[in-house]
Amino acid sequence: MRIALLGGDGYLGWPTAMDLASKGHDVWVIDNYLRRTLAIQTGSEPLICAPNLQLRAQRFREETGSEIRVHVGDCASFEEMERLFRESQPEAVIHYAEQPSAPYSMIGRSQARLTLQNNLSVTFNTIWAVLEFAPECHIIKLGTMGEYGTPNIDIEEGWIEISHKGRSDKFLYPRAAGSLYHTTKVLDTDLLWFYARTYGIRVTDLMQGPVYGLATPQSLMHDDLLPNFHYDDIFGTVLNRFLTQAVAGIPLTIYGEGGQTRGYLNLLDTLQCINLALGSPVQRGELRILNQFTETFAVTELAERVQRAAATMGLSVGVQHVPNPRKEKERHYYQPVHTGFANLGLRPHLLSDEALSEMLEIVSRYRKDIDLAKMLPRVRWSSTETHALA
Amino acid sequence: MRIALLGGDGYLGWPTAMDLASKGHDVWVIDNYLRRTLAIQTGSEPLICAPNLQLRAQRFREETGSEIRVHVGDCASFEEMERLFRESQPEAVIHYAEQPSAPYSMIGRSQARLTLQNNLSVTFNTIWAVLEFAPECHIIKLGTMGEYGTPNIDIEEGWIEISHKGRSDKFLYPRAAGSLYHTTKVLDTDLLWFYARTYGIRVTDLMQGPVYGLATPQSLMHDDLLPNFHYDDIFGTVLNRFLTQAVAGIPLTIYGEGGQTRGYLNLLDTLQCINLALGSPVQRGELRILNQFTETFAVTELAERVQRAAATMGLSVGVQHVPNPRKEKERHYYQPVHTGFANLGLRPHLLSDEALSEMLEIVSRYRKDIDLAKMLPRVRWSSTETHALA
Repeated sequence: MRIALLGGDGYLGWPTAMDLASKGHDVWVIDNYLRRTLAIQTGSEPLICAPNLQLRAQRFREETGSEIRVHVGDCASFEEMERLFRESQPEAVIHYAEQPSAPYSMIGRSQARLTLQNNLSVTFNTIWAVLEFAPECHIIKLGTMGEYGTPNIDIEEGWIEISHKGRSDKFLYPRAAGSLYHTTKVLDTDLLWFYARTYGIRVTDLMQGPVYGLATPQSLMHDDLLPNFHYDDIFGTVLNRFLTQAVAGIPLTIYGEGGQTRGYLNLLDTLQCINLALGSPVQRGELRILNQFTETFAVTELAERVQRAAATMGLSVGVQHVPNPRKEKERHYYQPVHTGFANLGLRPHLLSDEALSEMLEIVSRYRKDIDLAKMLPRVRWSSTETHALA
Repeated sequence: MRIALLGGDGYLGWPTAMDLASKGHDVWVIDNYLRRTLAIQTGSEPLICAPNLQLRAQRFREETGSEIRVHVGDCASFEEMERLFRESQPEAVIHYAEQPSAPYSMIGRSQARLTLQNNLSVTFNTIWAVLEFAPECHIIKLGTMGEYGTPNIDIEEGWIEISHKGRSDKFLYPRAAGSLYHTTKVLDTDLLWFYARTYGIRVTDLMQGPVYGLATPQSLMHDDLLPNFHYDDIFGTVLNRFLTQAVAGIPLTIYGEGGQTRGYLNLLDTLQCINLALGSPVQRGELRILNQFTETFAVTELAERVQRAAATMGLSVGVQHVPNPRKEKERHYYQPVHTGFANLGLRPHLLSDEALSEMLEIVSRYRKDIDLAKMLPRVRWSSTETHALA
């Protein structure tokens, strides 16, 4: 299949590109290194910093004989998207190309504006590139479980039947995200749905939870092929931070009470989900929404898991509760449905001690590069603070 | 009260500015004449073309002795908004400054992009100007009843309690708009709600139906003070088109079956609603949503009303069903709640024969300027057509 992959430099983008190319697909990736730029601007460089896309594509070719075609360009520019679509004639486009950090989007006005403009523009351009150059193309868009927030009822898979005053209808499940970044994904979904029902584009919108893991069959072939690994407060995720803190021998920092519960998944399952979505394209005019995670954990449970896995490696780590910089419920109901991918055939890789140990091993190789200053929260969910960022 | 009025050149903006200034408020208006620019670009000049804001403010001062302060500038530029907010120190900001045409937003990619970028940018800048320069300021935002679409259940006032699998929670009422323009208002609401609940801004979001009428106590003082009046397929509304067709002696053009039902209101009631909203500011962190219309009509009912009023003036007009250029239900359930403004004290001006006759009289004065070519639909809800616009 001819596949355009937007945001191919990312933590998910690069492993996805390698996976699909290894399976024989024609893969074109595009990225403008926005995340790298923002990371260095905020002093949030990753622990594992992948080489640039050209070098990685070359290394990947050496290791596997497979090709990944690389465009360096900005998906927020329609001209770049037109160039990509004309050249690749994609049958599917995977849209990962968004500013991905919630804390970054909450630093202040200019970061909020960049997040809103970039994310909406790329989604808009993806829609119009499909309409103009590849109308049958299946858009696979990376949303987030964070779009739903933490409602007091079960979270359905994108849609909900509402009965009200004796009548009923089916609606997009109401959304209430916890950061501006997550809110831009809500707007993306609104926009994709409008164009699906009005112009007949085909869309799968993936409500993904936080992903963990570094190991894929391709990424383990060479250190140059590992995905980037952020452990900082801005571009890192909570599990990455815990793993890095464990390796560094400092307490795992829990924001507030730690009852915040989310759906998580292994990077290997992201790859599975993308393949399952590609293999079951949707009809013209359909917006299919799939909740993409395999199991839910409270933050305190994640900390316990990391402590236990670290202990098996002889690392003894404590936990420390720090004031929560976010505005979020620290104890809440959380019951999200996730049967869509199960029905498509997903076979989950659960968060085992072995998976954690494997990650701890990899992080340990970069131990000397860990910067402890990057792990305490620098961005508060409040407009009135001035955030002193490096 | 010190009031900043964004989009003061518009059909609603100018009458609102005059009304509030007449009531003794300090009114600052800002507009960059975007609608005028787009109207001339699409060959959609209004039948009644108001003078520029400086001239109208001068005429208004001559007639009433009251002052309206005019900024010509673009609310999508934060620098302009900063200038306005620093100078006016508003206690309330009324945000009308959006690209207001559904058909315009559906012409093609560049018009869609302009609508999305302009509307979201102005809302974003309004939010941030309030956060940075006037945190107590009450944002009164013009949304649209079109955000809801035409669901098969009653439309509540912004929010809905959902009971699901034995639990319940309150949500933003799910939205499904019928054009990209209407969808940008859905995104506006999402954005305002995020900033209200996270940063504590005060917002009233008005879900307004189509407005009709030209006469206000101030607009009747001098022809220069009348609001602009569009009757074309792009910037006009259905009632304006019918009135103009009646005066021109040509059949009233109904899109499709004509069972499309919407909530309408008189311009005088828009003014009342704005005053009621201003007089009952909301708490920090609150997003109040009010459905702003006074009665619902199907398009065929509107046509009958216009026919009847025209007959009393000796004008005999027929109706003609034309293929519907839009993608919308032509027969549907429509039961929207609108008790919020009633509870605040709204006393409706209903669509009487007298109100219609008054409008027909005013339109008749401009009869020689009516351009029949402007009244047939030029924009279809389909991406694949090339729209030949002047």
